[in-house]
Amino acid sequence: MKQLTVKDLFTKDLEDNSTVALEGSIKTIRGSKNISFIELNDGSCLKSAQVIVKKNNENFEAISKLPIASTITVEGTFVKTPDAPQPFEVHGEKVELVGHSNSDYPLQKKKQSYEYLRTIAHLRPRTNTFYSVFRIRSLAAFAVHEYLQHNDFVYVNTPIITSSDTEGAGEMFRVTTLDPNNLPKDENGKVDNSKDFFKTETNLTVSGQLPEEAFTMAFRNVYTFGPTFRAENSHTPRHASEFWMIEPDMAYTRLPGMMDVAEGLLKYVINYVLEHAKDELAFLDENVKPGLIEKLKNTANKDFARVTYTDAIKILQDADKEFKVPVKWGIDLQSEHERYLCEEVYKRPTFLTDYPRDIKAFYMRDNDDGKTVAAADCLVPGIGEIVGGSEREEREDVLNDKIHEFGLTPEEYDWYQELRKYGEIKHSGFGIGFERLVMYITGMENIRDVIPFPREPGSAKF
Amino acid sequence: MKQLTVKDLFTKDLEDNSTVALEGSIKTIRGSKNISFIELNDGSCLKSAQVIVKKNNENFEAISKLPIASTITVEGTFVKTPDAPQPFEVHGEKVELVGHSNSDYPLQKKKQSYEYLRTIAHLRPRTNTFYSVFRIRSLAAFAVHEYLQHNDFVYVNTPIITSSDTEGAGEMFRVTTLDPNNLPKDENGKVDNSKDFFKTETNLTVSGQLPEEAFTMAFRNVYTFGPTFRAENSHTPRHASEFWMIEPDMAYTRLPGMMDVAEGLLKYVINYVLEHAKDELAFLDENVKPGLIEKLKNTANKDFARVTYTDAIKILQDADKEFKVPVKWGIDLQSEHERYLCEEVYKRPTFLTDYPRDIKAFYMRDNDDGKTVAAADCLVPGIGEIVGGSEREEREDVLNDKIHEFGLTPEEYDWYQELRKYGEIKHSGFGIGFERLVMYITGMENIRDVIPFPREPGSAKF
Repeated sequence: MKQLTVKDLFTKDLEDNSTVALEGSIKTIRGSKNISFIELNDGSCLKSAQVIVKKNNENFEAISKLPIASTITVEGTFVKTPDAPQPFEVHGEKVELVGHSNSDYPLQKKKQSYEYLRTIAHLRPRTNTFYSVFRIRSLAAFAVHEYLQHNDFVYVNTPIITSSDTEGAGEMFRVTTLDPNNLPKDENGKVDNSKDFFKTETNLTVSGQLPEEAFTMAFRNVYTFGPTFRAENSHTPRHASEFWMIEPDMAYTRLPGMMDVAEGLLKYVINYVLEHAKDELAFLDENVKPGLIEKLKNTANKDFARVTYTDAIKILQDADKEFKVPVKWGIDLQSEHERYLCEEVYKRPTFLTDYPRDIKAFYMRDNDDGKTVAAADCLVPGIGEIVGGSEREEREDVLNDKIHEFGLTPEEYDWYQELRKYGEIKHSGFGIGFERLVMYITGMENIRDVIPFPREPGSAKF
Repeated sequence: MKQLTVKDLFTKDLEDNSTVALEGSIKTIRGSKNISFIELNDGSCLKSAQVIVKKNNENFEAISKLPIASTITVEGTFVKTPDAPQPFEVHGEKVELVGHSNSDYPLQKKKQSYEYLRTIAHLRPRTNTFYSVFRIRSLAAFAVHEYLQHNDFVYVNTPIITSSDTEGAGEMFRVTTLDPNNLPKDENGKVDNSKDFFKTETNLTVSGQLPEEAFTMAFRNVYTFGPTFRAENSHTPRHASEFWMIEPDMAYTRLPGMMDVAEGLLKYVINYVLEHAKDELAFLDENVKPGLIEKLKNTANKDFARVTYTDAIKILQDADKEFKVPVKWGIDLQSEHERYLCEEVYKRPTFLTDYPRDIKAFYMRDNDDGKTVAAADCLVPGIGEIVGGSEREEREDVLNDKIHEFGLTPEEYDWYQELRKYGEIKHSGFGIGFERLVMYITGMENIRDVIPFPREPGSAKF
C-alpha cells in the first residue's frame, strides 16, 4: 500500500472507500469511551485529516490517550462525507504509535500570544498562524527568483563578510577570529587587525549593492537576495539585526524603467502567493488580518502612484492635518508623512521620486537641477517604505566629486570607481526589505514574527 | 524606434534590412582607415553583435579610436550575413559615444591567468570565461529552488548569526560589536560577553541544519540555501571561508528516499543548465574543460551508484592500487579513496552509505548493528564529496545519550532535544556545497573562480 500525504487526500481524486496509509502527527485528539477523533497533520498542507478510531480497534485504549504531537501510522478507509464540514474522514483500522510526545506539549489548543510564541520559536511553526506565515515567506522568496530569472536577471551572491562599508548605511557587526582575551597589539597599543583572519578589519555586509554593480557591468540585469545586517540598538516592530534583502540592478535603465521592474516584481510576488497559498491566506484573513486578501488583490491590480518629492511636499503642506514634524522642502520624510501620502492621499503603493540630493546616498545620480537625485522609494500602506532605489551615478568625474564631497575615503572606493573608469554605463537599482514584503503579504505587524529565528539586541537564541 | 538587446538580435526573427537601435559596450574594435568592426556587448547574452561603421559616418574618426569598454548607442540596419561566421551584422548609421572608458583597460584580448583575474574580481565577470561561470551559477541556484519548490519543499532562512555550534563542524568566526580597544571585563579579567550586542558570544553559522529541523517538524519537506562560514586556515582549491550551502530535510523519509531526492536534485540542476546555458557550456567545453558537456549529459542520464561503506572498504582493500593512507574498516576515507571509487570503479557519482558511527556527527541515526549510522555521502568524479547526508536521530533517548557520549553540552541542545520530546518524527536530510556543484558543472578547478568575491585567509577585498 503506497503511503499518501494529507495533501494527497485533499487534492487527489480518491475513490470513496479506498484503502489509504498515512503517517503523521496528532494535532488534536478528542472523543469518548467508544470513539476517538484525531486531527492528523503531516506538514504537507495547512489542513489536517480527520482520523476516526473506534473501540473495537485493538489499540483503541492506547491511542485514545496519546498526547498531542505523537506520531502515528494509520492504515484505513477513505470515506467521503458530503454532509460534514470536512470533505472526508479516514476510518483507522491499523493505527500504531511510532514516535512519542509528552503531555506538557506547550502548544495546546488555546490562543497564545505572539510574545510567548517567540520564546518557543523552535515550536511555533507548528501553529496554524506561523505555518501560514512561513509557507508564504517561502513562496514569496521563490516568486522573487522566478520573476527575476524569467526576466533574464542573473543572481549574484555578493559577499557577507566585507572589508568595505556601503555608504555607512548603518552600524556594523565586526567579524574576527582574534582571541578577545589575548589580543595582538600594534606599537601604539591598539588592536593589530593585520593579525586577524583576513589581515584587516572586517564586518558583516549592510548591502550587496556596490560589489553587485561589478556584475551589472557584465550581465546587464542582476540581483542579490541574501542576508544583511544592522548592529543598531533598535527595538521597533520593523527592525531586526539580521534580515534578507533583494537588490536588483539594471544597466541601460533609468528611473521609470526601474520603477516598472519594482512594481512588476511586487505584483508578481503577490499574485504568486494569492495563487499558491489560498488556504494560508484564508486562515490569516480570518484570524489575523481581516481584509488581507482584498488588500492584496487591490495592490496587484492597480497602478502604483508616482509623485515627485517636491510635489509630495506641497501636498503635505496643503493637507488639512497637523504633523509632528513640520513639513518643508529638504526634510527626510517621517513615517507620519509617508503613511499620510500612501494611506490617505493615494490609498495604494506610491513611488516618491527625485529626493533632495543631500539626504540621499553618494552613489545616487544627480539630476540636472543640481538639487535632487534620481531616486525613488515605494511606500505601502501599513508598512511605509518597502522599496528604496535610484539611478546610480555612472559618470566617473561626478562620482569622484561626490565621494570627496560626502567625506568618504576615496581609497576604499578605488575598485568601485574603476567600474566607471573602464566603461561608464548608466544603470539603476533598488532594494526591497524582504521581511517587510512578507509582513505586507501576511498582515503580520512585527518583523520578529516573519523571521524563523529573529536576531535582535540581546537575543540570538537557537 | 524601440531599443533592442543583442540577445534580441540573435533570438527574435528580425527581418533583413530592418532598422534597429542598440546600446552597449565595445568588447573589441578593429579596422582600417575606411571601416571599423565593433563587437558590441550589452550583457544580455555571451555573444556580441558585430557593428560596422564606415568612413562616411560623421563620427567615424572619433568612434574608430575609442578604447575598449566605451559605451555607445547605435542606430543602424540589421543585415543578415548567411555566408559569414556570424549570422548578421549591424551597419551603424548613427553611432554616438555615451560613456567613456580608458586605454589602459586591463582586460585586453589576450588570455590572462586566473590568478591575475582574481586580483581584479570586480572586472573579471566581463571575460567570456567568468561571464559563463557566473551565469551558470545563477541558473543552477534557480534550478535548485525550482526543483525543491515544485516538490513542495519550504525554503527556510535559518540564522546566520548564531549562539550555538552545529556539532563543531568547523572553526567559527566571532561576531561582536564590542570595541576591541576597550573591552568590558568580568571579575576574572576575562571579556564580559554579556555586554556584547546579543548579551552572549555569537558566531557565524557553519550549518543551518539544527534550527532547520524545527521547520521539518512543521512542514515535512524543507530546505535552506544560504551562506555558511569556516574560519579555517585552509588554502586548498576546494575550500573557501564563505560559501553557500543547500540543506534539504525531509520528514517521514529514510536514507533511500533521501538519496532519491539528492540524485533527483543534482540531475535536475544539470539538465536545467544544459538547457538554459548552451552558449556558456559550449564556451567552457571548448576553452576551459574539454568533454564537459559529455560528462554532464552522462551524469544526468545514468543512475548513481550506491554502495555501503563496508563494501567500499572491501573494494579498496582488493584494489590493485597502493594508497597513501592504508585502508581498513573505521577510517575516514581520504580523497584518494573517494576518487578511486567514483572515478575508477563506478565511473559516475557514487553514494557511500552506512558509515562507522564514530567518524560521523552525533545527530546521525544509529543503525541497529551498533557500529554504523544511516549516513550517505555522494562522491563525484573530479570533485570528491558533493553531498553529505543522513537520517537524523529522532529517538529522544538515543539522541540524549549521544549528546552525552560525544561530549557536547546538553544545555546548548535543549531546544533541539525538545523537537523530539514534543514529537519524534523520523527524518533525513543532506547538505550540498553549492560552489562544489558549480565547479562540477562549469569545470572550474578552483573554488575562488566560482565565487563572485571569494573570501579566504588574508583576503576580504571588495
